Amino acid sequence: MTNSIHIDDLEDLARGAAFLGTGGGGDPYIGRLIAREAFREFGAPRIIAAEDVDDDALICSIAGFGAPTVQVEKLICGDEITHALAKLEQYLGRPIDALIPAEIGGSNSLVPLMLGARRNLPVIDADGMGRAFPELQMNSFSVHGIRATPLVITDEHLNCSIIEAGTDTEAEQMTRALAIQMGLRVFIACFPMSGRDMKKAAIYHTLTLARGIGASIREGRMKGDPVTSLINYLRGTTTYPHAHVLFDGKITDLDRSTSEGFSVGRCTLASLDGQPSTAEFVFQNENLIIRVDGIMRAVVPDLICVVDRETAEPIPTQALKYGQRVKIIGVSAPEKMRTAAALAAFGPKAFDIAEDFKPIEILAAP
Amino acid sequence: MTNSIHIDDLEDLARGAAFLGTGGGGDPYIGRLIAREAFREFGAPRIIAAEDVDDDALICSIAGFGAPTVQVEKLICGDEITHALAKLEQYLGRPIDALIPAEIGGSNSLVPLMLGARRNLPVIDADGMGRAFPELQMNSFSVHGIRATPLVITDEHLNCSIIEAGTDTEAEQMTRALAIQMGLRVFIACFPMSGRDMKKAAIYHTLTLARGIGASIREGRMKGDPVTSLINYLRGTTTYPHAHVLFDGKITDLDRSTSEGFSVGRCTLASLDGQPSTAEFVFQNENLIIRVDGIMRAVVPDLICVVDRETAEPIPTQALKYGQRVKIIGVSAPEKMRTAAALAAFGPKAFDIAEDFKPIEILAAP
Repeated sequence: MTNSIHIDDLEDLARGAAFLGTGGGGDPYIGRLIAREAFREFGAPRIIAAEDVDDDALICSIAGFGAPTVQVEKLICGDEITHALAKLEQYLGRPIDALIPAEIGGSNSLVPLMLGARRNLPVIDADGMGRAFPELQMNSFSVHGIRATPLVITDEHLNCSIIEAGTDTEAEQMTRALAIQMGLRVFIACFPMSGRDMKKAAIYHTLTLARGIGASIREGRMKGDPVTSLINYLRGTTTYPHAHVLFDGKITDLDRSTSEGFSVGRCTLASLDGQPSTAEFVFQNENLIIRVDGIMRAVVPDLICVVDRETAEPIPTQALKYGQRVKIIGVSAPEKMRTAAALAAFGPKAFDIAEDFKPIEILAAP
Repeated sequence: MTNSIHIDDLEDLARGAAFLGTGGGGDPYIGRLIAREAFREFGAPRIIAAEDVDDDALICSIAGFGAPTVQVEKLICGDEITHALAKLEQYLGRPIDALIPAEIGGSNSLVPLMLGARRNLPVIDADGMGRAFPELQMNSFSVHGIRATPLVITDEHLNCSIIEAGTDTEAEQMTRALAIQMGLRVFIACFPMSGRDMKKAAIYHTLTLARGIGASIREGRMKGDPVTSLINYLRGTTTYPHAHVLFDGKITDLDRSTSEGFSVGRCTLASLDGQPSTAEFVFQNENLIIRVDGIMRAVVPDLICVVDRETAEPIPTQALKYGQRVKIIGVSAPEKMRTAAALAAFGPKAFDIAEDFKPIEILAAP
């Protein structure tokens, strides 16, 4: 089964990916521009279903790496992305057969499409988390024993480094140190894996789902209630069946900085729905936990997504502003992202959050 | 012409290398231990003269990289050194034919001897600076257009990274960022070059000279005046013909920290030779400039070496102590290290020192 993605789909896809990015994953507008440019020049890449990939195929991910606050200021050349893949192929001594997004969130869903177009490589309709996460080891590939390394990191000057580390956590630390030095707008080619391993670890259908999310927002706008349209679409999927508006309010305080290679901070809101109530969410590139009147309402790995309260436009970390009127939507993470091993890698404890993980469907139960 | 180095020579060699290290280059005692261990197990490596190396031979350097203050606390495993070379050979797709020290100073003269013994590879009686310097691009190889990259960096866990950068200054910045993350006790295999290029750029005979310096100190001790013996030896060489005692005093203040991957600071001294006088020298791993009563008496790339005033034992940056009684010796840098291109790369301006370079033989003239 294949499911093509056309140039006209990129706006929906970018918007859906921005939603699934839960604040991070790279700026979706920039991602859409570079994908559109590549589609125009080279044609759209072939999209293949994960189950159709040959067991012995060689697959890798390609992604932007850094801090979203920096990535909107320092644009993408494009050659650094092609260079990262070429260097990985050279190092492995074998060409890559297909690309898979490391994360579906933000521009990191679009970067593989752009490179797939440029290099005439198929892109798999799946990814490594069904959302975005800030650190290299926080994904289903790593949880399933697929190693991020050898990993190639490149910058816009085509400086590059190939990293081999004992663990993906060490690889994250080395890549982060280099990324900071190289300007926090770098690309990585990583997770070289077989088709066999990919099928065990990947979150399926997420490119199609991101496009569907974007379409549900667009169609909802025409009918006057994009947030409800979005919620209804998510509830109709098997990947994201639980979706709830957790808060409706305006941003009253924002503390955001670029620190140790991440965009970190917290955001406070006051309710607009008549009940005097305040909410606070915390982020490290991605939104990690939301508390309403001090009570946890959603926590990683479940998705905490900020959207404009009227248009349902997803608002990434770098675009949060004082006075914005937003709705915060909690969405259940895909099942592969909620196992005990997954929670050990990217549950609350991995972010020094005191609370234990509780699924959104329990936290949001009346 | 070959000139063998035996296990019994290592003490002289290490002491001479510590002197030429001008404060840095890695702890010579640790360097001597690992070289002696390797000589015992595998036999001494063959030492070859630079002029005898085949034009088409593939040569590289191997060196410790980091901050001397850290290197005395975190010892060397040895396998990380072998691993760095193996990774570089794998990346280049060709075995290395001979090793050359990147710098003769400190343990970095001994690390290639250790690896030469382990791998049964000849070591060239030459190096890239005739002293030590803190940054990757500060050497005669870079000045002659030989690139530090591809460069492999490894740590004691055998984490590794291969760096390719547009310039050696960018390579330094990337390597430094990684070295800090990896714990500032790392090794690099770098400067892959042909025998032809090496012959143009290298500083010749420096392994033999380091051993000679060490021997002159040892022999001087038996005669009761090791500092004079050392000065006389240096003046008899063609590489280091100008050598002067610039100050004789005790350390009255020391400000030393590990910052941005270097050991940096300044050291103040009061004279012991009867004249009321103070001196101050500044270091970044290596000693950079000495001022006596506010007047510059020596500056990089000339060598500023601190030795015990009685035994002439060289005192590296990490071993400086309040109250130490020392003599500070200025030595002319080899001619290849004083050209206009060399001064641009590692003259006073490269270290934000306001004064222009003046040769020690002019500064020390009566």
